[in-house]
Formats: sequence, C-alpha cells, structure tokens
Amino acid sequence: MKKKFTYLFREGNENMRELLGGKGANLAEMSNLGMPVPYGFTITTEACTQYYEDGETINEEIQKQIFEYLDKLEEQSGKKLGDTSNPLLVSVRSGARASMPGMMDTILNLGMNDVVVETVATMTENPRFAYDSYRRFVQMYSDVVMGLNKSRFEKIIDEVKEKRGITDDLDLTAEDMKELVVRFKEFYKSELGTDFPQDPKDQLMGAIEAVFRSWNNDRAIYYRRMNNIPSSWGTAVNVQMMVFGNMGNDCGTGVAFTRNPSTGEKKLYGEFLMNAQGEDVVAGIRTPQTIDHLKEVAPQAYDKFIEICDTLEKHYRNMQDMEFTIEKGQLFMLQTRNGKRTAQAALQIACDMVDEGAITTDEALMMVEPQQLDSLLHPMFDPKALKAAKPIASALPASPGAGCGEIVFSAEEAIEKSSNGIKVILVRLETSPEDIEGMHVSEAILTVRGGMTSHAAVVARGMGACCVAGCSAIEMHEDQGYFVIDGKQYNRGDVISVDGSTGNVYGEEIKTVPVSISGNFERFMAWADQRRTLMIRTNADTPRDAKQAYNFGAEGIGLVRTEHMFFEGDRIKAVREMIVSKTEDQRRKALAKILPMQQGDFENIYEAMQGLPVTIRYLDPPLHEFLPTSSYDIAQLAKDMNIPLDDLKAVIASLHEFNPMMGHRGCRLAISYPEIAEMQTTAVIQAALSVQTKHPEWTIQPEIMIPLVGDVAELRYVKNVVKEMADKIIAESSIDMKYHVGTMIEIPRAALLADEIAQEAEFFSFGTNDLTQMTFGFSRDDAGGFLQDYYAKNIFEQDPFAHLDQKGVGKLIKMAAKAGRETRPDIKLGICGEHGGDPASIEFCHNVGLNYVSCSPFRVPIARLAAAQAAIKSSK
Amino acid sequence: MKKKFTYLFREGNENMRELLGGKGANLAEMSNLGMPVPYGFTITTEACTQYYEDGETINEEIQKQIFEYLDKLEEQSGKKLGDTSNPLLVSVRSGARASMPGMMDTILNLGMNDVVVETVATMTENPRFAYDSYRRFVQMYSDVVMGLNKSRFEKIIDEVKEKRGITDDLDLTAEDMKELVVRFKEFYKSELGTDFPQDPKDQLMGAIEAVFRSWNNDRAIYYRRMNNIPSSWGTAVNVQMMVFGNMGNDCGTGVAFTRNPSTGEKKLYGEFLMNAQGEDVVAGIRTPQTIDHLKEVAPQAYDKFIEICDTLEKHYRNMQDMEFTIEKGQLFMLQTRNGKRTAQAALQIACDMVDEGAITTDEALMMVEPQQLDSLLHPMFDPKALKAAKPIASALPASPGAGCGEIVFSAEEAIEKSSNGIKVILVRLETSPEDIEGMHVSEAILTVRGGMTSHAAVVARGMGACCVAGCSAIEMHEDQGYFVIDGKQYNRGDVISVDGSTGNVYGEEIKTVPVSISGNFERFMAWADQRRTLMIRTNADTPRDAKQAYNFGAEGIGLVRTEHMFFEGDRIKAVREMIVSKTEDQRRKALAKILPMQQGDFENIYEAMQGLPVTIRYLDPPLHEFLPTSSYDIAQLAKDMNIPLDDLKAVIASLHEFNPMMGHRGCRLAISYPEIAEMQTTAVIQAALSVQTKHPEWTIQPEIMIPLVGDVAELRYVKNVVKEMADKIIAESSIDMKYHVGTMIEIPRAALLADEIAQEAEFFSFGTNDLTQMTFGFSRDDAGGFLQDYYAKNIFEQDPFAHLDQKGVGKLIKMAAKAGRETRPDIKLGICGEHGGDPASIEFCHNVGLNYVSCSPFRVPIARLAAAQAAIKSSK
Repeated sequence: MKKKFTYLFREGNENMRELLGGKGANLAEMSNLGMPVPYGFTITTEACTQYYEDGETINEEIQKQIFEYLDKLEEQSGKKLGDTSNPLLVSVRSGARASMPGMMDTILNLGMNDVVVETVATMTENPRFAYDSYRRFVQMYSDVVMGLNKSRFEKIIDEVKEKRGITDDLDLTAEDMKELVVRFKEFYKSELGTDFPQDPKDQLMGAIEAVFRSWNNDRAIYYRRMNNIPSSWGTAVNVQMMVFGNMGNDCGTGVAFTRNPSTGEKKLYGEFLMNAQGEDVVAGIRTPQTIDHLKEVAPQAYDKFIEICDTLEKHYRNMQDMEFTIEKGQLFMLQTRNGKRTAQAALQIACDMVDEGAITTDEALMMVEPQQLDSLLHPMFDPKALKAAKPIASALPASPGAGCGEIVFSAEEAIEKSSNGIKVILVRLETSPEDIEGMHVSEAILTVRGGMTSHAAVVARGMGACCVAGCSAIEMHEDQGYFVIDGKQYNRGDVISVDGSTGNVYGEEIKTVPVSISGNFERFMAWADQRRTLMIRTNADTPRDAKQAYNFGAEGIGLVRTEHMFFEGDRIKAVREMIVSKTEDQRRKALAKILPMQQGDFENIYEAMQGLPVTIRYLDPPLHEFLPTSSYDIAQLAKDMNIPLDDLKAVIASLHEFNPMMGHRGCRLAISYPEIAEMQTTAVIQAALSVQTKHPEWTIQPEIMIPLVGDVAELRYVKNVVKEMADKIIAESSIDMKYHVGTMIEIPRAALLADEIAQEAEFFSFGTNDLTQMTFGFSRDDAGGFLQDYYAKNIFEQDPFAHLDQKGVGKLIKMAAKAGRETRPDIKLGICGEHGGDPASIEFCHNVGLNYVSCSPFRVPIARLAAAQAAIKSSK
Repeated sequence: MKKKFTYLFREGNENMRELLGGKGANLAEMSNLGMPVPYGFTITTEACTQYYEDGETINEEIQKQIFEYLDKLEEQSGKKLGDTSNPLLVSVRSGARASMPGMMDTILNLGMNDVVVETVATMTENPRFAYDSYRRFVQMYSDVVMGLNKSRFEKIIDEVKEKRGITDDLDLTAEDMKELVVRFKEFYKSELGTDFPQDPKDQLMGAIEAVFRSWNNDRAIYYRRMNNIPSSWGTAVNVQMMVFGNMGNDCGTGVAFTRNPSTGEKKLYGEFLMNAQGEDVVAGIRTPQTIDHLKEVAPQAYDKFIEICDTLEKHYRNMQDMEFTIEKGQLFMLQTRNGKRTAQAALQIACDMVDEGAITTDEALMMVEPQQLDSLLHPMFDPKALKAAKPIASALPASPGAGCGEIVFSAEEAIEKSSNGIKVILVRLETSPEDIEGMHVSEAILTVRGGMTSHAAVVARGMGACCVAGCSAIEMHEDQGYFVIDGKQYNRGDVISVDGSTGNVYGEEIKTVPVSISGNFERFMAWADQRRTLMIRTNADTPRDAKQAYNFGAEGIGLVRTEHMFFEGDRIKAVREMIVSKTEDQRRKALAKILPMQQGDFENIYEAMQGLPVTIRYLDPPLHEFLPTSSYDIAQLAKDMNIPLDDLKAVIASLHEFNPMMGHRGCRLAISYPEIAEMQTTAVIQAALSVQTKHPEWTIQPEIMIPLVGDVAELRYVKNVVKEMADKIIAESSIDMKYHVGTMIEIPRAALLADEIAQEAEFFSFGTNDLTQMTFGFSRDDAGGFLQDYYAKNIFEQDPFAHLDQKGVGKLIKMAAKAGRETRPDIKLGICGEHGGDPASIEFCHNVGLNYVSCSPFRVPIARLAAAQAAIKSSK
C-alpha cells in the first residue's frame, strides 16, 4: 500500500498531531466538532521528511496525492483553483508538531492571477478587494517562495502613496491596487528574469515547497534548539480555502484567548479588526479593537464565537488561543491551540481550572512549563518598554532575569560603583573565581566567551544573577575602557540592559519590574511535591545560597564546592601560602590557617539546612586557579608573601598545564597532598559535631564527596585518609556521629567501573558537566565556538552542556547506576551537574531511578515541577 | 580446613609458581628430580598477601606454620637452629612468581649468634670462616631487616684493613673477623639502642618479614611497573639450609647458563669463585673464573654439574640460569630458572632448540620476549667510523648495542639530563637496583667493577640496553665529576661511545647505523607470521617511515597523520596562510598551494607500500599548533605574510583554547572548514589514481579516516563532503577505484554509540591515546607529574598510556567492537594508538577479535611476535 501523505480535515483528529502537525490536527478536530472551519487538507510531516530525504524535492507520489486532494477540496467547496467563474483561493500554512509561532512561512490568497482577479472583482463587486488580495499574494509569494526582499515591495507602496499624496493604506483605491500589482510583477520579473507564475498549480507546489524549506531556516533551527525540538519531526502543510475578512465592513478577523494569557484571569481576551486580513492584525498598522466590542459590531458572530470558545476550552481542558475570520457576517475558525501564557497566568489558570473542577491536579501540573517558573523568581523587563527596544546583540541566555546599569569592566569597579549605589553591568571576556564578589553586586553579567556551563553562567545561575554569555559580537577594548558592537562604541559608564531570559543585550536603559510570588505558587508546588518521587537537592557553596535554596524547597545540598570559599579576603592568602609551600610542614601550617574559616562556613551551612543532608565535595580545581595571572599581580603577591619573585614565578610555571581540565585536580590533589583532605575532613566533622551539639533535635550525617575518581584505588586511598581523621575526631567527641563517603561519577572510566567503585562509595553523584566534557571530548570552555558550526550545519540540535545527552552520557549513567546498585543495593544515586536543573534531564534521571537531582537554588522550583511531571508521565 | 601457607621443597613442583614463586617452585622441582638441593621450605605468596591484608603483620596462623615447618626442616637436616652442638644455619630469600632479579632482599647465615659462632668455629675447625659468616650475617641483617646503611659497615671494614695495613679482604684474619663482629654489633646497638638479636627464631621472623616488606620497596615497585607485574601477586619466601662455598679451598660458588646468554651459542657459560659466598660473585670484588676451569679445580662437582645442566635444560625445555655452591667438594644446586638472554641469543637458542628437536616452533615463539626484538633493530656503530676510532678501554661486552652520549655519574643526573633530551652514558663503579630508572634512560651503561652476571649486566640485557661491565681501566673521581683512563681526564658532560657488543669504550662520538638482521630473525619471524591471525600495520607519516616499516614486515599503514607533513618549508607557510584566512575564498587559495605537496607525499607513500592498504587520517590537531608562540616569531610571521601584526595577534588570540585537547580539532575542523577535507580528498584520490595508473598490478583502495568523531552526524557530514569530491574525481578518471571511509574511535561517546557510527563507518581504528585520555580524564601532556604520586602510593602500577587499560578503556573497545560488528558484520577493526606496539595490549586486541594493530615501524616485529604469542596462548 502507498503511504498516505494527505488528509482532508474531516479525516483527521486531535490525536494525529505527529502526522498532521498541531494546526492540522486541531483544524481536523474542530471540523469534527462541527465548528465552522473552511475546507482544507493537510500534507503530513512525513511528506516533509520525505522531501528532505529526496534531496529537497517533492516526489511524484506526493505531488500526485496533493493534486488528488486538491480535487477533493474543490469538490467540497464547489470552487476550482484558477477557475474563471468560481475561483478557489487558498492559504498555505506550516504547522509543526510543536507550536513554533512565526518561525515558518505562510502564503495567503494563492490562486490569484491576472484572470482570476477580474473574476473576483466582478463576483464580489469589489475590485479594490480583488486587487488588494492579488497584490498581497504577489508580495508574499515573492518573499516566501522566491526569496525577494519584502522591503522592496513596501518601498513601491510608499512610492505610490507619495505620488498620490496619501499616507494611509486604506486610502489606496482600486486603481492604486491595480497599479501595485503591475509594478510588483514588473519588479518580480526584473529581479528573477521570469514572469510571475500564472498557473495556480505551479503556485501551489511552489508554496508547499517553500513551507517545507522554511522548516530549516535559521530562525526555525534556532527556535528548535532553544525549545528542544528535534529536526527530524518536520512540518506539515495546511492547504485551506480562503475566507476573507477584508471584503467589506461586515467582514473582519481576530485572535483571542479563552483566558487572559498575561494574568490568567478567567475572561475572554483578544482583539479584532474589521475589513482586514490576518496579517493586518499582526502588523499593527491599524489598532485593533478589544474582543468585547465584537458584540456590538457582529453580534451573531460574537455569540457563536463565545459558544465555540467555551466548547474548545472544555474539550481541550486547557486555555485556548484562537484565530477567526468573519466573512460577510459569518464566523470561520482558522486555528485553535493551547495558549502560551506568562508564568503567573499559567499558575492562575491551573489553579482556577482545578477549582472549577475542569481538570485534575495532575493535569494542572502538566499544564505549566517548569522552565517558566524561573520568571517568577527573577526581575523582568517591563514588557511594553521591551517591545519598543531593539537589541544590539544576542547571545546565550545563561541565567534568567533582567539587568540594567552602567558598564564596568572589572570586579573591583563593580564593587566600588555599587557601593556608591550605582547599578552596574559587569562586562568581561570571561569571568574567573576572583570575580565572584563583583558578579554578586552587579545587576547582570555579560561575557564575550564561554557557553552555558562557563564559569560566569554556572556562578550566575547559582546566585540567581542575570547573565548573558558568549556574546561574540562584542569587540573588547577593556584597557581603553570601551567595547564595540557593530561599529558602535559603548564606554565605561554607559547604560546598557541585559536580558538573561532571552540572551538579548540593549544599548539603552529599560525599566524592570519586580515580580511577586502569589499564593498560587505555594499551592501548585505542594501538588508537585506530592506527586514526585525524585528528591530535589541544591548546589550551594555559601550559607546564603543554602538559605535561599532551603526557602525554595530544597531537601538537602547535593554539592558544596568547598573551593568557592577559598577566594575571599584572608583565605586566598592562606590558600596561596599553601600552594607555594615547599614542604609538607609548610603546607600544613598554611592549611591550619584555612581550617577555622572552612569549619565556620560548614557550620553555617549545616545551620541553614536545619538538619537536611549536606554533601561536601573536596577541593576540586587545579591549584593554579588560585594564583594571579598578570605580571603586576604576581609581583604584588610575591611582595605580600615576602618570597622572591622568581620563586613564585617558578611555582606558577610548575603548575602550568596544557589541558588543566584533565590535569592535576580533584582527588588527584588529595592523593599528592593528603594533608588537604585531612584538613577538610577536620573542618567537616568538627563543624558537624558543633552543630549537632547545638541542635540535638537534628541528625547531622556529613556526606563527604571525593571528586574526579576514575579508579577504585583512588577513592580507597582518599577514603582511608578521611576515615582515619574522621574516626579519630568522632572518637574524641561524646557524639556517636555517622558520616558517609562517596564519590562523583564524572570520569567515563568511573562510570564504566562503577561496580568496583561502589565497593568503596556509599553514594554516587553524577557530575554531568565533567562527564559530558570527557564523554564528548568537548572542553566546555572552548566548545562554544565550534558548536555554532554544528548547529548551523544541523549536526547537533542541542548544547549537550545544557541538555543531558541521554544517548551517550546517559548510557554511561544507566550503566553506572545499574552496576553501582548491583554491588551496593542501598547506594544513594544523584546528579549534581548543571543538568540537575533541566526538565528533560530531570525526566531522564527519574526514569533511570536516581534518588535525587541537585541544582542551583533558583532552579529548585523548576526541578520540583519537572520531577512531578516525570512521575506523572511515567505512571501513564 | 586451615589454609596451607608453608610447603617443604619436596611437597612442591614446578607448576606451583603462583603459590611458591619461581625460585621455590624450581627448588621443589629439582628436589623431586633427585638433584642435590639443600633442604628447605617455602612460605607462600598468599602469606605475603595476607601479611599486607593484616596491616603488615604476620598473623599467628602463619607464624605457627612457619615454626612447624622449621621443625620439619630441622628433622630433615638433622640440625637445629641455635643448637650449640649441631647448629642449623639458613638462608632466607625472596622468590616472586615472575623473576625480579636483585629487586628484593636476601639474608644468609641466619642462625648465627655469639654462641653458635663458636660451635661453628669448632666444628669446621675454621674460626675465620665462622666469624666471617657471622659478620656477614650481622651486616645483612642490619641492612635488610633493620634498615641500617650498608656503607657504614664497609667503612668499618676499611678501618680495620687500614689499621692492619692490608687492602684485600682475603687477608683479614680470624681475629680481624672477630673484631668486625664486635664492632658491627656495637654499631648496631649505638644506632638502634638494642642488642643484636641472639634468638635465631626472632632473627627468622625478622628476616621473613623483611622479605615481605621488600615486595613494596621502591625499586621493586618500579621494576614491576616496567615489567607489568601486578602488586597483588606478592612474593614467596624460601627458608633453606645454608651450604658454604667459603669454608676453604675445596669450596666455591658460581652461576652458569646452559647456553651463552649473549650469543646463544650452545656451550655452558658461567663463572665461579672458590672459597667464596654467592654475594662475592655478584659484587664483583674478586674477578671470577670462567666455568670450564671448574673441571680442573673440582672435577667431580664439575661432572655432576654438567649432567644436571643437561637434565634441567631438557626438563624445562629452555636455557637455564643456575646457581650452585660446592661445599667441601660436594655440589649443591641453589637455583635454576629460565635464563635471561639477549635478543640475538634468544633467537639463536630458539632456532637451535627447534633444530635439535628439543622444542616445537610454538615453544620457540613463546621463548622470546617480543620487547627484546627491539635491541635487534636499534642502531649499531657505523663500521667505518668504528674502524677509524681507537678505543680508550676495553672490558666485558655485557649487553649488545651501541650508545653514545654525555658522561653522567648518577641515576638522578641521567634522568634529569635525558628528560631534557640529552643523550647520556651512565658511568658507575657498579650499579645497584636503585639505579634502574637511570639505566633505563641512558644510551649505555659502563661499570668499573663486576662481571657478566653482575647487576649491571643482567639488568641491561633484560632491558635490551647497551652495557659494558668491569672496565677496571677507569679511575673514578665521581665526586669531582670526572674519571681518568690512561692519564687522560674525562669530565661530566664529555661525549663518549660504548659498544656493548665488543666491550670497547671510545672517548669520542661515533656515528651509528641500523643493524642488519641475522637469518635467524627471518626464520623466526616467519614462524610468527604463520601463527598469528592479527594483521600488523604501521603508523607512518612519511615515505621513509613507510619504507622502513615495509621492510620490517608491516602489512599496511594503519595511520598516516597528514598534519605531520604540514610543518616543512613552504608548506607551513601555506598552512599559516590558510589559518589566517578571513574568507572561504582566501582559505581555498591557500589550500590549493598545499594540495600538490600533500598529493606528492601520498603518492610516495603508496609507492613505498607497494599496493598494501594505507589509511590516511584527515587533519587532526588544533590550528594554533601551526602558529608561532614567541612574540619575535609572531612579528616575523606578520612581516612575512604581509599582514598587520594586530590581525595576526587577533587570529592567535581567537584560536587560544583552555583545553586544546578537547577543543577545535579533528573532524570538528572539517565541519567548520569543509574545504580542508575537500583538499585532502582531492590529494588522496588523485595520488591513488596516479599510482594505480603507474602500477596496474597493484590494487590501490584508499582508506580515509575521519578523526575525533563522537556522533554519527559528524561522520555523516564529513563523509558526504569526502564522497562528493572523491566520486567526482573518480568519475572523471578512467579507473573504477574503490575507496573506504571510516573513523577513529577515540572519543568515549563514539565507543558508546558505535552501533550508530558503524552505519556510516566502513572501518574503526581505535585511537587509544586519545581514548585513554578521555576515559581517564588524564591529559597525557600533564599526567606525568601526578602519576608519579600514583605509583609511589601504589594506586596505579602502570602507565595507562604505555599499557592499555584493559578494564576501563578495554571495556569501551569491547563494547564498540561488538556494536560495530552488529551493525556492519564486515567492518574492519584496528588499533592505531601507541598501545599497538605493546605486547600485552596486542594480546588484548587479539582476544577482542580486532583485525589489525598498527604501531610505529620499529615496533612492527615486536607486534608480529606478540600477535603470534597471543594466538598460541588463546589456542591453549
């Protein structure tokens, strides 16, 4: 049997969205519900896939089916494409499985030609309408199908208006429209060397192919990557009889939501324009009226529409976003879909619909995009101000939020200005651990290099700061105090705005609005907590972060990066003293200075978490990260430390590595210098004992995590160092404290040999940042550049540092989880890489059967919801 | 049942070497063969393992069994340890499963104390012997068991000799020996605060524990790492009744080989000393006599020994290395083992024994260490240059080969200089086990003292290093940094040459030439080729290397690194021009300059390989590797290229990466710049067509290898670029050429997803260097430093870059081989990392079922033999 590539609307239904796309499936469903939908048919997503498989040609079989279904459409409508007495005009629209609004192309009024236009003029007794429709078609077809620049057509319209001395399109007469058609066609021929196609069937095939092609235009690829949509899905194409909102004053067109998409209020929300075609509403040339005015202008159509809205929302059990057209007083539905909404609205609608008895709490939970919750927790730009602004550059939306302030180029500057009450944006080539305090006081961080897991991105997300990363459009001249984008210079002190949710950068001040969390949030998250089985922990390095995460509902800390405490004030001095030590004795002396500070931090973290579990990872980064890099700073440090400059330079040189990410770090440090692990163990255990003493009502059980293990012998060695020290301290105390020693699984070899490693490890925490790095062989600090080429060439669709690579890295995780449990059935399994806050990755973790995910504090609510959704999906 | 930790010699046999160690198993076997072996028993390797498991204590059960077996030994011998009438004296010697000569410790004459020595003096009527034995025991025990410095005892001996006005140890009288015992014991007490132990059972337990401990001394660990011996094996301990070669002139001791270990000649080879203990022969203080003189001195013992030699060689089907002692005319066998031999000797012996009908060719193949063949392939001195040179001294040709380099006087110096790329000759009075690492890195070893079986000689032969021993013409002034021969001074840093095949030493630099291989080699390798199933290819980047490898028997090239051709003369200019290109056009122009050069190289390589398969890997390293790094060179280059210095600096800055090993390289380059892959394809295919035309008798089928693939989409993209270009060129030619496109498997993800990758790849070549890097997360440029700590702390025993990590990396290889074959049953599988030349890794490759290994040209013969041995082993 031949594969079926075409479906009449009445042949489909809402469950066929994989094949018919969202728009096609919903048009079919509405048709079957008996709603007034103009006749049409859908060309399947499989036809699109086939088109690409056939080297971007529509094969004969598909062409045959299209023409066959065109015949059926003509039969249904009683009109014929290109007919001189009763011509059919159609729209050709894309419709992918997932909604990709505005990403792909649409052509209206197809079927128009020099003859048909006359017939339409006669039939409608409205030549202006007929020629307006024709010129719109020529314009769209030239742009979408032939790739001619839209603006050239606008220029021609302007010329005609100027000649006629008018400014409003509505003042263009039928004759003017006729002239536009002629001039458009002339321009078409001069540019392309051929006449504008007059055969409607040629027009149709051209339009269909253009829609297929638009599946792979740059903005569609970008949108898919941002929204996690596979390129293999393809788009369907809907060919539908035109109905006209621009035939006269009893005609109109509009869009509406069944509830307010901005607030969630249960009240029809929308707007319409009389005597207009859909694009006029979108284009914003005329100001549309709000939907309730339709009651006065077209009462019958309005009543019908209200009835349909109600039916659709009940039917789809979700707020609907609809398009409609009124032709000579009669209502036609052109689209319905679940409406996009703000996070606030999403929560409001979910709660309201539960209260109305319209949906279950499970359905309510599935209704909200986890990622959306982010916007509730961060300040946002005022939407109106944002609409008016034009971005000067766009890069990676590394950490959500909105920031507006004066440009500064160093952490010191940021600290100084902000201490004077000036809001600043920290602009850096890339950030490093020394910048943390400066990042903290900045409204936003903007970096030139680095990806979604670069230092700037990770730290900013951790602290809930707005960050846009990898903005390669910036040409830095920080020494001269300015940067350049597109030839324009931005100086230190100039005000810019940075949108961490979209990645946009603006060369001006944009107002921000704080967002308050409503009661709906608590109620909704309680449903999520009830539903999920995955525990949610947080990655927090400071008592402040820990408190934040606790308030967001974290059930423990999955990752304390101990080294993040090493950079402040006196500590960095002691750390540097340790690093330049030449003997173990010197090193121990320096470590003794760090001990009380580290212990104090741990105490405060235990306090903040109020007895919830805390996993502390031992020193991880290569030691050179703690030393300065500029000659000035190095000379200064030598002076401060009172050591010969050459000695310090020698130390720095000896620590230089070609690939530090695969160098002397992680447990390798503890193996070379066990005294570091001893000091950290002392700090961990003494802190735990002290907090336990103060709070006998809590049960403190430190979890000590050894990083970068690749062989059980490494873990065994460090664990012995830890145990010897820990057992001694505990024995000397009056408390019978339990503690646990586990490891990160972040080296591929550790995942491969997890059965052996589990002999020593009481828990595994998958460090998916490093695991992704090593499994792909992608340095996360360097991959940003070439991954752009990968996206452009459709080799990768997603950033594996943002979304867990389930096939490759995921395979290692599955293997390790299984092997670990075989050796040690009660082993605790978690994940603490950046992926711990990514909903798709969380679903994977749920399905693999991990015990917990750990993510940055601001992602905790997202993770809670994502975990609930994963549980709901897997229970189906 | 209790575990049995002790075995009398008569309870064991040669097949129990895992439990009894090599020495113990062979002593047992000789006992069972009715040969004169002094009574004794063996403490098993499991006791050693238990010792470590019990935290370095000998547990009660083992102690019990030891004393039980001591009783049995006393019963057998009719003597009693510590008895005042008929005292038993024993030796305590280590004996691991694999021979580790000189690595661990030995104690002789145990059982001596202040009372026993008198009894021995009376019984033997030889007080000098008795006190000599006692002072030796005190000396050894203090050193081995208590860790006192040997040289302090030597100093005491020197003081006594000086006082007595003598220079030769033999001139020391009984009284002198007695004085030495007193002074040794005084020194012992002053150092350790306790008296020298008088209870022989205490002595025995101390000695046994010391042998266990010596399993983990630094030199043993180093030796194991070099020789791939697991630390888990442990050593056995042999406790054996002493027989004395130093009781008088009818006593003696010696060592011998059943054939010449240097040439392989079928003639008993060895040396002995009358009135001496074993250590005297090894120490090289007195110069021993060759073994045939024994016939005159001790004819009965000689005849018996000849008979035993013959029996042992037949029994073990291998050349034997034996130790014997003659006590009052009676022969005792103290050891036999398969003798170490030079590569030349190994081949000679293997061929001779096959010809004698003594062994099969399989046995012959198993008899030669693949690694040994190396020494056959290393350069020898240019005969002409050699003729013109005049030796400054001549001594024992202890291990063949030729070495030329700067004089160094210590192992540390050798290591330091060689790590800076300086060739060195290690000149020592005599070597000791601590020197091993220094010997390893030296071009040759030259010793002042010692014979053919001295430490230096034995170890050098083992490692295939050039060695001249016993060069007494040398007057050492190592503290002053020079030595003198014939009044002429040779300083540290002066260049000398050493000929290990003749024993000549030259005071100048002498040119070396590759050695010509004997007929045995061809014959032996033919057996290997017949036996192996694994194909052996080579890694060769130049026509010269290809020719070399072809001559060594390579059956194709598994890896041509195309970039290695990019560095020469004009090429590097064109390559740099390509790198600094700002447009594809500029880049293509630069590539067009590289094309003819690259094509020429490929033609020459095809010619060299005479129709054998050639796998060409596309550009792999990051582009910055082709640019200069010093400011001077950068400025110069900017001038040469006629581009602004700032532009060039900007390019270099833009190419900087934090972890270049995981950066923009491999197929990632071809994805960003497909024009590079197009140029390389053009070069490969045009070269192949041109050579095919010239040589219609060959079938040239280029194998194009895409590096660093981690996802099938990467391979698919580059493969399409390759195919489009290749098919076009082939279509335009008159030849119907086939070609193959495959990939390296060197990214862990590629191994994990090999099933998908095999959809596109016609062959896999495991790049185990990178695969090891990523799987361990060890940068191979940086790991050297911290791996030293790993060895020192017994965390790793081997360098995973030298020996394939079969557990971790090997698991990936197995998974990938299986998955690849499931997708594409006829996929060709090979390995082209450094491990391709490592025998243990080759065995793994054979067992996994790879089709070929590819290694550097000089390792091809090694790989051929290792592959044969793997086949023989796996057929058992």
